[in-house]
Amino acid sequence: MSIQKLLSGAPRVVNIGLSAFAQDLAAQHVPVVQVDWRPPAQGKRHLAELLARLAAHEAQIASANQEALKRMLAATPVLVDVQPAGSVIAGLADPQARIILHAGPPIDWQRMCGPMQGAVAGAIVFEGWAPDLESAARLAASGGVQFHPNHHFDAVGPMTGMTTRSMPVMVVENRAFGNRAYCMINEGLGKVMRFGANDASVIERLRWLADVFGPAFGQALRDTGGLDLVPLISRGLAMGDEMHQRNVACSALTLRALAPQLARVVADGETLAKILAFIAGNEQFFLNIGMVMGKSIMDPVRGIAGSTVVTAMCRNGTDFGVRVSGTGDAWFTAPVEMPQGLYFPGYSEKDANPDMGDSAIMETIGVGAFAMATAPSVVGFVGAGSTRMRWRSPVRWARSR
Amino acid sequence: MSIQKLLSGAPRVVNIGLSAFAQDLAAQHVPVVQVDWRPPAQGKRHLAELLARLAAHEAQIASANQEALKRMLAATPVLVDVQPAGSVIAGLADPQARIILHAGPPIDWQRMCGPMQGAVAGAIVFEGWAPDLESAARLAASGGVQFHPNHHFDAVGPMTGMTTRSMPVMVVENRAFGNRAYCMINEGLGKVMRFGANDASVIERLRWLADVFGPAFGQALRDTGGLDLVPLISRGLAMGDEMHQRNVACSALTLRALAPQLARVVADGETLAKILAFIAGNEQFFLNIGMVMGKSIMDPVRGIAGSTVVTAMCRNGTDFGVRVSGTGDAWFTAPVEMPQGLYFPGYSEKDANPDMGDSAIMETIGVGAFAMATAPSVVGFVGAGSTRMRWRSPVRWARSR
Repeated sequence: MSIQKLLSGAPRVVNIGLSAFAQDLAAQHVPVVQVDWRPPAQGKRHLAELLARLAAHEAQIASANQEALKRMLAATPVLVDVQPAGSVIAGLADPQARIILHAGPPIDWQRMCGPMQGAVAGAIVFEGWAPDLESAARLAASGGVQFHPNHHFDAVGPMTGMTTRSMPVMVVENRAFGNRAYCMINEGLGKVMRFGANDASVIERLRWLADVFGPAFGQALRDTGGLDLVPLISRGLAMGDEMHQRNVACSALTLRALAPQLARVVADGETLAKILAFIAGNEQFFLNIGMVMGKSIMDPVRGIAGSTVVTAMCRNGTDFGVRVSGTGDAWFTAPVEMPQGLYFPGYSEKDANPDMGDSAIMETIGVGAFAMATAPSVVGFVGAGSTRMRWRSPVRWARSR
Repeated sequence: MSIQKLLSGAPRVVNIGLSAFAQDLAAQHVPVVQVDWRPPAQGKRHLAELLARLAAHEAQIASANQEALKRMLAATPVLVDVQPAGSVIAGLADPQARIILHAGPPIDWQRMCGPMQGAVAGAIVFEGWAPDLESAARLAASGGVQFHPNHHFDAVGPMTGMTTRSMPVMVVENRAFGNRAYCMINEGLGKVMRFGANDASVIERLRWLADVFGPAFGQALRDTGGLDLVPLISRGLAMGDEMHQRNVACSALTLRALAPQLARVVADGETLAKILAFIAGNEQFFLNIGMVMGKSIMDPVRGIAGSTVVTAMCRNGTDFGVRVSGTGDAWFTAPVEMPQGLYFPGYSEKDANPDMGDSAIMETIGVGAFAMATAPSVVGFVGAGSTRMRWRSPVRWARSR
């Protein structure tokens, strides 16, 4: 200690807990260090006891989580193809099975929210399992189709997350582990099935994606040997994307990478122009690529005994579900939240649907809300904190298969 | 003042100048405010007297600079076309005049650095004014061509900055003032004329740019009504570009904006693929667009009586030149600096050429080095300060026309 400090004669204090004591000392120019300490589990006894039980297995958990993290960091996801879902997703091949994959944990028709039911009716019409939306809804309500989570079929989907056999899915291969994951192509803005829209314009766009866009995009990917995603997202994150709300850079970098080969693949200039404009005009085009990448990264992390790493977070508009590595493929669900978001003038939470979609796979791999602080455009929009992702603690967690 | 602060009994100090006094007080927990004051002009008497003379005109200068700033902020630069330089730049039409525009302030053949002479020889061969590089150099040395700065012809050019009549120049119109500016298309990486290279591969690339790339790019710009640059660079800056060393985002956003129309304009798939790959493969593609934008912004700022705003900064590899609004088109020159940069292993300043190019127009409009702090990738490369742009004060300033 310096002579000067000794001469100053002031006490020096470490204060633990309530900061008011430290503030008083600081106001009197007394050197003070504040330790931000709180009782475990916010003082709730039952939760504290549960935490204590976990603490007894600390070494095993730490080691299991180390393995989980190792697998996440070792992932080498490559976007390799676009194919009809029925030709690549095991279990979707049979048209008689009439399987509809949806976002979030398992749910039946009766408990589905309006947008999810609307999307289901549209998907049934798209597949030709019913001639119109009314009969499609009757078919769904009467048990004429099967519902399963995307997550049960190596897939993910944004918002309603519809995946049926004729839809063109992007294929990401995690080359470090050999697994593949699947996600429908992002439909763009306006009336789209992921928000529950289902009119003729929605079905028509899906057909164009299946018949024109998907085959060309898939051919360009096969021709170029696929798009290595880690270098691409590294750049995109450094360019202000957080990869959930904002995919401006990653979408532009994807277009940049594939435009030359698309020019070789698509002979007709007007068709090519429409394909390029579809990517160029949708700054969330990359979101679905990010999601399927996330799924391919997290699937090898499932089922590590003792690991507390969350391997999936998703919502179906009714329930919020998580999977934890150490508990395998069990779902832990709770009622889903209404996001605290921004609304257009004249609209409020009363007009909104609770949170929906498999897109929280982005937060599951650690981007999205967790990368928002370094996404200046997003921070400017939602404020310094994260309103979009500020989930209140869900209550009534339930465990299911 | 609070009771607590009075009770503390410590003195409170404002310290001006040498900070050591303030540090001693702070070490004893005495509240102190440090004022960072230094004698004007670092104590140099002659400079201080010049500053005092300027200070006598403070109100006029402030008002003139306000007008300069107003014009800069009012600029609405739009990339509207690509055309052969001879068809759009007044004075380059006549092939017999054999005019070569170069970067930086005026210079003659004898004082040109090696890379500039090499580029001149290449440009002469490209224009067909001499059959080979040796005779081209003889032609230039014997006064058989005319040299003028780009800046005298509404133009700018990176590094050696060659602009001759057959080269395809991008045209930016500043719609708020009606003026146009011009810049050659960025050649990409490797052996390029802007670095002084001049072999057959360099000439061949220039011909492809003039015959294939330029006409297609120009047609796409005309068809789409041009590319509005302010919204584009606003996004690019928020995506980590500083627009001198790094144009990753702006280049990708330019490709995104024009790829669909290029697909309509270019019938042959392989040709189109090569055009798209040329933009996609050159992350500095946008630099030349940024430069011509900068020129179009600063030209209306020239000649405001009393304004001290710098309207051009540029280097020809031998001299560094600036123009100041209030002194019209006079050049103030000094010997150019050797940049304090990073070198590949085995190379040093001994292998380098002093600074060169009109690209400091980026700093003239306030981006480049001045936007570097918000370009994370660049900061990570050059360090927290700016080594690239840390010019030592040039000595021996001279005034010329």
